[in-house]
Amino acid sequence: MPRYKLTVEYDGSDLVGWQRQKNGLSVQEILESALQRFSGASVVVHGAGRTDAGVHALGQTAHVDLARDYEPLEILGALNFHVRPAAVAVLAVEHARRSARGRTYLYRIVNRRAPLAIERGRAWHIGPELDAAVMHRAAQLLLGRHDFTTFRDSLCQAKSPVKTLGRLDVERVGEEIRITAEARSFLHHQVRNMVGTLKLVGAGKWREADVASALAARDRTKGGPTAPAEGLYLVAVAY
Amino acid sequence: MPRYKLTVEYDGSDLVGWQRQKNGLSVQEILESALQRFSGASVVVHGAGRTDAGVHALGQTAHVDLARDYEPLEILGALNFHVRPAAVAVLAVEHARRSARGRTYLYRIVNRRAPLAIERGRAWHIGPELDAAVMHRAAQLLLGRHDFTTFRDSLCQAKSPVKTLGRLDVERVGEEIRITAEARSFLHHQVRNMVGTLKLVGAGKWREADVASALAARDRTKGGPTAPAEGLYLVAVAY
Repeated sequence: MPRYKLTVEYDGSDLVGWQRQKNGLSVQEILESALQRFSGASVVVHGAGRTDAGVHALGQTAHVDLARDYEPLEILGALNFHVRPAAVAVLAVEHARRSARGRTYLYRIVNRRAPLAIERGRAWHIGPELDAAVMHRAAQLLLGRHDFTTFRDSLCQAKSPVKTLGRLDVERVGEEIRITAEARSFLHHQVRNMVGTLKLVGAGKWREADVASALAARDRTKGGPTAPAEGLYLVAVAY
Repeated sequence: MPRYKLTVEYDGSDLVGWQRQKNGLSVQEILESALQRFSGASVVVHGAGRTDAGVHALGQTAHVDLARDYEPLEILGALNFHVRPAAVAVLAVEHARRSARGRTYLYRIVNRRAPLAIERGRAWHIGPELDAAVMHRAAQLLLGRHDFTTFRDSLCQAKSPVKTLGRLDVERVGEEIRITAEARSFLHHQVRNMVGTLKLVGAGKWREADVASALAARDRTKGGPTAPAEGLYLVAVAY
């Protein structure tokens, strides 16, 4: 069966996340229903990164096996027609060749006194001023191969808490703080838990060294709180 | 009575526009209700730019006269508290000193094959590729002092159709086309009608010279269609 790779953008605000669930609409269900309407057969779509309820994607990827060969552009057009009116857009369809080698997430904080109107539901709003330079320095202490239990959700199903974090950059762009995280794969809530911890550093409540101690503790209760889903974007999956 | 200037951001998607209307919630009504809850008195808020239903603002300004002196920061906090849960944020409150000298609008087109998910309702989606460089050249033909009847809505209440357009830049940033318009003031729908016309040029349906002819005709039926409200942002009002 020919295998196709889908690149997908979505606004997660009104969705229960990537994975199909009984209690609401998921991206997986939206794509599977659309593919079924198009191909006439029931299919399973496998996401390269699972996003939680409220998390967005600029470039999620997924693969699906179809019973016969289609032109990728035909699938693209049909999918975008059938996913309507959900806030899901299929950006590209290609023949799938390799498996995923890495994921890039973006976490957006809007750091200003006034609440959010345009970006509401699309970023974490923090009023008091954060020091992005200190957050960036603290973030560098998390790079490399570590046991990330401190930043792992209790529901995480990964076999091992050991992951290799390749990049964790914190950058201020005007009133926005952009945190970019790259790894081959992440634990459940790892990015949001790291961001919630870095926020404590940026606010002056933690020193940089506290981040290293928290990591070394291998204990979720020693980490900062979980940053809200609405600021998180799955940007891209590398192949 | 002390006069205050408010700088306001809003997502216009679910609003009937700036101006108070019987058929739905307006930004003016939201601000006036919030000020009334704060000050206890009924007030009128005067917007520096009127935005239509669905049009957004990154920096609308308005002025209001209050019965007594308040600290601007006190008004800011109280307003942001009382406007909730509307998608309106007050960015700044200052003592008002001068009247408005100019308005800057941004029109956002997302020019890509795939439909919009994240930016849905916040930009005009156009699938076929537009030539932004040709659109920019055509836009320069509209600069200066002209009778803009060709780009004026029939409901426009301005006394004269003569306006001076100071800037109309078209720029491609990745898959986005950003059109920036500046003038002391604009006719009703002028920006959206100019954008709808430039889109015809970008799509190769009109030549640049057709824009000059349309302007010279002083006839709305000779202009292009009105671009949708959802791509328009009132960026700033200059004082």
